[in-house]
Amino acid sequence: MTEDSIIAKLRRRSPLIGDDCAVVPSRAGRDLLLKADLSIEGVHFTRELKPEQIGARAVARSLSDIAAMGGTPLYCLVSIALAPWTDERWIDGFYRGVYKMLGKAQASLAGGDISHADQLICDVILCGSVAKGKALLRSGAKPEDSLYVSGPLGGWRHKRGIEPRLQFGRKLVGVATACMDISDGLALDLHRLCKASGVAAELDNVPLLKGATLDEALHDGEDYELLYTAPPRVKVPGIRIGAITPGDPPGKPPGKPGTVRYDGKALKPIGYDHTRRLPSGQNPVR
Amino acid sequence: MTEDSIIAKLRRRSPLIGDDCAVVPSRAGRDLLLKADLSIEGVHFTRELKPEQIGARAVARSLSDIAAMGGTPLYCLVSIALAPWTDERWIDGFYRGVYKMLGKAQASLAGGDISHADQLICDVILCGSVAKGKALLRSGAKPEDSLYVSGPLGGWRHKRGIEPRLQFGRKLVGVATACMDISDGLALDLHRLCKASGVAAELDNVPLLKGATLDEALHDGEDYELLYTAPPRVKVPGIRIGAITPGDPPGKPPGKPGTVRYDGKALKPIGYDHTRRLPSGQNPVR
Repeated sequence: MTEDSIIAKLRRRSPLIGDDCAVVPSRAGRDLLLKADLSIEGVHFTRELKPEQIGARAVARSLSDIAAMGGTPLYCLVSIALAPWTDERWIDGFYRGVYKMLGKAQASLAGGDISHADQLICDVILCGSVAKGKALLRSGAKPEDSLYVSGPLGGWRHKRGIEPRLQFGRKLVGVATACMDISDGLALDLHRLCKASGVAAELDNVPLLKGATLDEALHDGEDYELLYTAPPRVKVPGIRIGAITPGDPPGKPPGKPGTVRYDGKALKPIGYDHTRRLPSGQNPVR
Repeated sequence: MTEDSIIAKLRRRSPLIGDDCAVVPSRAGRDLLLKADLSIEGVHFTRELKPEQIGARAVARSLSDIAAMGGTPLYCLVSIALAPWTDERWIDGFYRGVYKMLGKAQASLAGGDISHADQLICDVILCGSVAKGKALLRSGAKPEDSLYVSGPLGGWRHKRGIEPRLQFGRKLVGVATACMDISDGLALDLHRLCKASGVAAELDNVPLLKGATLDEALHDGEDYELLYTAPPRVKVPGIRIGAITPGDPPGKPPGKPGTVRYDGKALKPIGYDHTRRLPSGQNPVR
């Protein structure tokens, strides 16, 4: 299949595709959200995974970031470098997965690029929107805020697919003080949220997916649940997992900004490492 | 260098980087332009090219598409899969090229993704804007329109770098009936413009870059000049290269939509092929 023939096929469903750029309306009173997420053969998945799943998962990763800002996804670009082992059937399956995931999120495929490489690589770009000034940032957590997750953790080995928490995220707008999605494991991602907010955190409850271990929940990634904070007496959906504490200067307890403690013990900010190669057949979503 | 350390460095210059998504204002009365362009080692460049040039060129390709819509570039995301042969010095050089090209275009780096692959691959995403309903599409060319280019052609071997025609493109808004940028050679790209507009074209003048051959100008690509049409008596900047003719049904002269003739002879829609591998050391920009 040539680039032009793939584009011609996609245009039947996606009229925004086909010019030098996609042209879409701007929205008064809204901020725009922009996100790009790479999915790479051997890093994020292996080729044994079905093409539908590779496509759906690549899109879901970016949608999860829109969810984490409390946003609504609007337009998607998919850039793909096809590996020599892909064929028309594979490409059709991949885009089936893309469309399925975008359909559930009510977002449109609006463009992208198609080329070739030795390894399959795709980059999914999402453009979303959120009420002006209302995006849920990582940097708003305050000492004494309660800390929550949108669901049980330990996704890597125990979850069948990614369900971006879009509705959940929108419910947190105006309620949560900080929010992000957990993609690299609770320990590392909570460390990032705390660092961005200049605070520390104390965990007292880590809810586990059926079959998952505490270690998987803390350090394994691929959860795509939301991690967020809210003032202690505000009613919010989700599971309370701990509280935000002051991020004092180094040496002074309870710890410098970014420190995450569980049962009083500091956790190392170690999580899913996107530099490691996956062994053949080992996939985050089966 | 880890992903977090590269991001920390970029954040010093690019405060929009660092949350789950970049949050940017929406603009009333404007349409948004969205574009993604892959640049792949061995397909679009080889590693002998300086990292500054690889970065600048990758960004320039997307900027050229914004120019072709008559738009103003605003925000850029750069997703990069680093190859094992890259090091900190290379990465710094690459982003120096990215910032230099974005600086000239007055656009901001707002995010992206960083990962690893066997081959260097980057995807440059641009978000721009244009006055509502005024984007220059490929589909507006009418029979009898004159056909123009913004400069001489044959770029692949004879051009030192890409200068996206942003100011030129904005001057064409409200004047040109159709516009696109020439990235894959005049013959193939004019064929695409004619097909999108349901017309044919007759070339009578192909301006050549110093040292370039007619064959390079027609079929070699990497020009990044604008190709556009305007009614015959409207004054427009640029070089007149021919005229639009009706795209009659197959068999009837002057030809079906998409047919491009030069001196009365139909040209094959053959251009730069992004599926071929570049021999080591052969680069479009030296």
